[in-house]
Amino acid sequence: MTIKQIVSQLTLAEKASLCSGQDFWHLKGIERLNLPSIMVTDGPHGLRKQRPDANDHLGVFDSVPAICFPSAAGMAASWNKALLFEVGEALGEACVSEQISVLLGPGVNIKRSPLCGRNFEYFSEDPLLAAQLATQQVKGIQTHPVGTSLKHFAVNNQEERRMTIDARVDERSLREIYLAAFEAVVKEAQPATVMSSYNRVNGEYASESERLLTTILRDEWGFEGAVVSDWGAVNHRVAALKAGLELDMPANNGYSDSLIVAAVEDGSLDEAVVDQAAERVLRLIEMTKPQANPAPYDLAAHHQLARRVASESMVLLKNEADLLPLSKERDVVIIGELAQTPRYQGSGSSKINPTMVETIRTEMQSAAPLATVSYAQGYELATDDSDEGLIAEAVAMATTADQLVVVLGLPDRYESEGYDRQHLRLPANQLQLIERLSAVNERIVVVLSNGAPIEMPWIDKVDAVLEAYLGGQAAGGAVSDLLYGDVNPSGKLAETFPLRLADTPAHLNFPGANDVVDYNEGLFVGYRYYEAKAMETLFPFGHGLSYTQFDYQQMSVNRTALTDEETVEVAVTIANSGARAGQEIVQLYVQDLQSTVIRPLKELKAFTKVRLAPGETKTVTLTLDKRAFSYYDVSINDWHVETGEFALLVGRSSAVIELRETVHVTSTQPLPVAMTRNSTVGDIMCHPATRETAQHFFKQLEMPFNIAEMDFEAEALDLGAAMLKNMPLRGIVSFSQGQFSEEQLAAFLNALNAN
Amino acid sequence: MTIKQIVSQLTLAEKASLCSGQDFWHLKGIERLNLPSIMVTDGPHGLRKQRPDANDHLGVFDSVPAICFPSAAGMAASWNKALLFEVGEALGEACVSEQISVLLGPGVNIKRSPLCGRNFEYFSEDPLLAAQLATQQVKGIQTHPVGTSLKHFAVNNQEERRMTIDARVDERSLREIYLAAFEAVVKEAQPATVMSSYNRVNGEYASESERLLTTILRDEWGFEGAVVSDWGAVNHRVAALKAGLELDMPANNGYSDSLIVAAVEDGSLDEAVVDQAAERVLRLIEMTKPQANPAPYDLAAHHQLARRVASESMVLLKNEADLLPLSKERDVVIIGELAQTPRYQGSGSSKINPTMVETIRTEMQSAAPLATVSYAQGYELATDDSDEGLIAEAVAMATTADQLVVVLGLPDRYESEGYDRQHLRLPANQLQLIERLSAVNERIVVVLSNGAPIEMPWIDKVDAVLEAYLGGQAAGGAVSDLLYGDVNPSGKLAETFPLRLADTPAHLNFPGANDVVDYNEGLFVGYRYYEAKAMETLFPFGHGLSYTQFDYQQMSVNRTALTDEETVEVAVTIANSGARAGQEIVQLYVQDLQSTVIRPLKELKAFTKVRLAPGETKTVTLTLDKRAFSYYDVSINDWHVETGEFALLVGRSSAVIELRETVHVTSTQPLPVAMTRNSTVGDIMCHPATRETAQHFFKQLEMPFNIAEMDFEAEALDLGAAMLKNMPLRGIVSFSQGQFSEEQLAAFLNALNAN
Repeated sequence: MTIKQIVSQLTLAEKASLCSGQDFWHLKGIERLNLPSIMVTDGPHGLRKQRPDANDHLGVFDSVPAICFPSAAGMAASWNKALLFEVGEALGEACVSEQISVLLGPGVNIKRSPLCGRNFEYFSEDPLLAAQLATQQVKGIQTHPVGTSLKHFAVNNQEERRMTIDARVDERSLREIYLAAFEAVVKEAQPATVMSSYNRVNGEYASESERLLTTILRDEWGFEGAVVSDWGAVNHRVAALKAGLELDMPANNGYSDSLIVAAVEDGSLDEAVVDQAAERVLRLIEMTKPQANPAPYDLAAHHQLARRVASESMVLLKNEADLLPLSKERDVVIIGELAQTPRYQGSGSSKINPTMVETIRTEMQSAAPLATVSYAQGYELATDDSDEGLIAEAVAMATTADQLVVVLGLPDRYESEGYDRQHLRLPANQLQLIERLSAVNERIVVVLSNGAPIEMPWIDKVDAVLEAYLGGQAAGGAVSDLLYGDVNPSGKLAETFPLRLADTPAHLNFPGANDVVDYNEGLFVGYRYYEAKAMETLFPFGHGLSYTQFDYQQMSVNRTALTDEETVEVAVTIANSGARAGQEIVQLYVQDLQSTVIRPLKELKAFTKVRLAPGETKTVTLTLDKRAFSYYDVSINDWHVETGEFALLVGRSSAVIELRETVHVTSTQPLPVAMTRNSTVGDIMCHPATRETAQHFFKQLEMPFNIAEMDFEAEALDLGAAMLKNMPLRGIVSFSQGQFSEEQLAAFLNALNAN
Repeated sequence: MTIKQIVSQLTLAEKASLCSGQDFWHLKGIERLNLPSIMVTDGPHGLRKQRPDANDHLGVFDSVPAICFPSAAGMAASWNKALLFEVGEALGEACVSEQISVLLGPGVNIKRSPLCGRNFEYFSEDPLLAAQLATQQVKGIQTHPVGTSLKHFAVNNQEERRMTIDARVDERSLREIYLAAFEAVVKEAQPATVMSSYNRVNGEYASESERLLTTILRDEWGFEGAVVSDWGAVNHRVAALKAGLELDMPANNGYSDSLIVAAVEDGSLDEAVVDQAAERVLRLIEMTKPQANPAPYDLAAHHQLARRVASESMVLLKNEADLLPLSKERDVVIIGELAQTPRYQGSGSSKINPTMVETIRTEMQSAAPLATVSYAQGYELATDDSDEGLIAEAVAMATTADQLVVVLGLPDRYESEGYDRQHLRLPANQLQLIERLSAVNERIVVVLSNGAPIEMPWIDKVDAVLEAYLGGQAAGGAVSDLLYGDVNPSGKLAETFPLRLADTPAHLNFPGANDVVDYNEGLFVGYRYYEAKAMETLFPFGHGLSYTQFDYQQMSVNRTALTDEETVEVAVTIANSGARAGQEIVQLYVQDLQSTVIRPLKELKAFTKVRLAPGETKTVTLTLDKRAFSYYDVSINDWHVETGEFALLVGRSSAVIELRETVHVTSTQPLPVAMTRNSTVGDIMCHPATRETAQHFFKQLEMPFNIAEMDFEAEALDLGAAMLKNMPLRGIVSFSQGQFSEEQLAAFLNALNAN
């Protein structure tokens, strides 16, 4: 029986019933048709499957043990697409084993501000990086008969008033920054579901935005799955259904179904809309229904994967005088409660009940059995207040320490789903500790556990910093692997670390006021902002060190001129000139050198991660297509390339560009010419399509200036030239004192626009 | 005969004819009624009265000699209201003498970006400062039967595409920043005319915006004069007339009059609108018609006033080790062509033909007849290219100079009406000169001639900097007066000097693209931006040094709690503890300490300039009323004070606050309570008007959480509390599974909103 046939056998009430949950985590099935009630579960850096006997609604504290992988902020730092696919495969396998149909993730929201409490669940401030990583995770999960839920669609970039806030964003920023990752993942990976977000977008609830959920998501991008609400996100059920939201979660005891039935019955809702929704939900059930007796999955193997992933998800930010790696022959002093009570995942609905947890302290000891690894708590994680006793003990140990590791980071209460951070500082007691320690020992290795950037006023007082992010249950082992050099660090930042909160792009408009937040920074999010404002950062986007050295030797392109229907291949030759094997993330940015629209100075358009043995040289190839050169043109509602020169910039980070080429791209899609009586003399004299007609016109016109012969491309450096250039054509009517009429102007405009 | 009676005797054609110019600079008269054709003229830092025999349309190069006062950017630095009144009186006297009816100024546009080519004609980045100075200038001029034209109304903050650009600005920024100065001047000084600007504002031509020209200007502010277009600004004549623009300038040979007549005849325009316009123009003629044989004015006295004004319009930015004042007993070396070929006013329509011009070189020599004042050109003003011969000569003289003054600045081609600056740099040859000079002599006094901020990468290499702005025809003497200490510097910056162009608030959106400029920085213009972003500046708003020292001794308020219907008087006691007489500008800023809307950190709300003899102590009193504490509330379309604490900050600049008090202001104007089903639990529990009703409601409701007892004012630091606080009330319906109905929710909302 096809799904359409099943739908045709359902009553209206049954069809409506498919459009909301049976309970917090199950969809409804239909017993008489043998349609199972499938289960969905939070994630996506692991399975937060609620125990069947749990009485905790959210299941946050009572879920089935699962492997806790690093959260997305960390995994993004791997820049490793294959690794994300592998993680996806493992998660999918676990879902099959746990009879989970849909894993609710990944989240590709853009990190508009580092304050957003949920940033640890998101990948990046850059849509291309977020898209390419999430695409692989979705593909990996969906190699199994398991669905994903790409979330939170859309423009959900803060927790403050998240259920009602109106995110106001201009169309270009919407398309180029906030929707771009969703677009790419939908087109490339077809996630089984997309989760509509709580907030409003430009005045309309995302959950009832037909433009977002149907026009853009389905009609433009070709989404084939079902749209599910974030839990409790539906404002008006029938409006949401009409807009394209099939599944209202969680359960509400049939209340929202009854609204759907009533609307059909009173004629305000076409039953065909319900049919289509039921069909999409049924297709989801069909695709993802659980196996009867699935095999268990290999927890030990998955834990090892989690450790490998964690080690690629950490970023070596600083390593003065090659303080790292540490020697296993020498003793180590570890200070900081986080070394013993790790924070390895974020707080909120994504919180996994891990199968086991490694700590830095035990892992470093077991990795160096012949050395003494001693430990001091240093601070209490549960409070911001300093404890002089703990500090004194730590200082005493630090004074004589041969190798000193200080583990700092954010407690749960500092970053979580549900609320945003108020500042970028570490707790005061940790700051005091690092001050005191740095006074007695200059050779400090700081390891950080946090889900988003922090300020580091102490950066100059320590020699090494490893950003460990929230590294999952194997984070302890991964830190040990990296600090001892068993694994060579290979992560790079997927987000800028600013010097101060006030430096951040959204600072003047975060989290908004009066239930509205204006995205006034526009396109200038993350590195796009810091570069346009020529600001220093603590660590730039794309930054990350290794224990070996990579030389960027050469760059070549297979063509230097292309149309926007062609692609260009960029070959980059890179060598490992150091003594250790390692991986380097090669980043390719594109800069529009001649633009009439406002554009960021450069944007990430391709990247790859390459492994090189000591002394090895490889050439990697990156391909750029039209999109890499495009901006979203609101006049044609489409992506558009402006004909002109583009710089291709290859860097080891956004701030360190090593190689550069220039290509010329020619648009095959001319924008319509639409001159008006308020187009200026400069407009018609500079536009290639109208210049000749304009020159001809001005030659005939009797005017005190010889406009036809003037060079309006040049900068106008006197008042007369500037006034002429900026004069609207209607001025000709006025200055001619009516002798050149509005009718003649209209005819002239027709001639101009006919070009 | 009353004006209404005159209008009743005019034909439609005659009435329409009053609504446009007779030529570039004259309105039309009506001979048979003995109505004169009055003359208007550009300004307003002098009279640019076109010679009757001039064939130059704009009259830029051929106008009657007049006293050239400092341009507005400089006069604003005086912060001296009485002085602006005095300048106004002098200008009015000159107008009477020259039979000028309306002097076209002053311009109170806000300096959104230092790049705006016309900034030299405007006062400040701060609307209060611009308003208070312009008010006095208008009042001074209008003590005579001469009108002013407050310009350019409105949101005209760039020259690029000035005749067509659409300035998009949110309502609060429009009211609080861009309209505020116009509002104050109209209300305080009733300028005879207001000049509508070229540009569009939020999609509509300013010249045909009924909202700007009638609703706001006349209905809200009570403007009683006539609205005149900027020259050539009218887009559709009839639309402009309907919107409230009476006078279309300049002449167009009756073309626009004919459009008015035709519109009345075809019924698309009510003749009463024409009547009213004619009446307003006639009232202007009546008020400002010239005397038959006016007396000449005292050019020498006006020149002396210009010199005094200039010396208050200059700002001593830096004076290391009291290098200034210079000694008249010692020789001086002056370097820089600007010392000999001064730039003392801006380029464009405001350019005065001065009666005489003082130069720094000759004035410094004549002030110190016993010393040798030698001069080297140093650079060519006409080019950016360095001349090694000129540099070498200057270096040689600088090496042995006892006292060294280097005069730098911007050539005309760098800043003018008509086009914007592209950067904030001095010409390359001047930069090279100062580099070379500073290598041989560390005791350099730099004097700057420029109309807007420049970057000073050389600031650490010189000991003193005097910002002389464009100081008018007596600038040379004023510089001499200040450098020798004949006058003690007393100017302070009316604008921030940023470190770099990229630091400026509008940098990401100036001058826009596609004929649109988005004012995305919103309220954060000038110091409001640098403070909110905690950025360093080169010199902050309000900064300026003196040759004496002022001690801010004490501050008191006449009440610490007030309602928004009361005022508070702030008394500040200040002493001159130095050895010279001097003037200090006391600045009072207000900071809203508890705000639910986005506000700048602090805003200038009052200031005064006080003269103190050596050792003298004075107490000045500044008064704050409701407006000083208000923001513009878009929900009530009015100014509103949020009840709460406000800090009153008294400073010698925006960055150096010396004294501080706190007052509590209580609003007498409660905002309407308008809770909706998407108001949050936190909203109704935190709002004083709804809290009790909400608590009562939640006590009765059976829920798993005791909402009624929870403290929602506190920061929510766990997911559960945060979720509850941010939950919209509609969630109660959903979570109650329909048991609490939408109807019950509606009743609850009624109860809440009844409070």
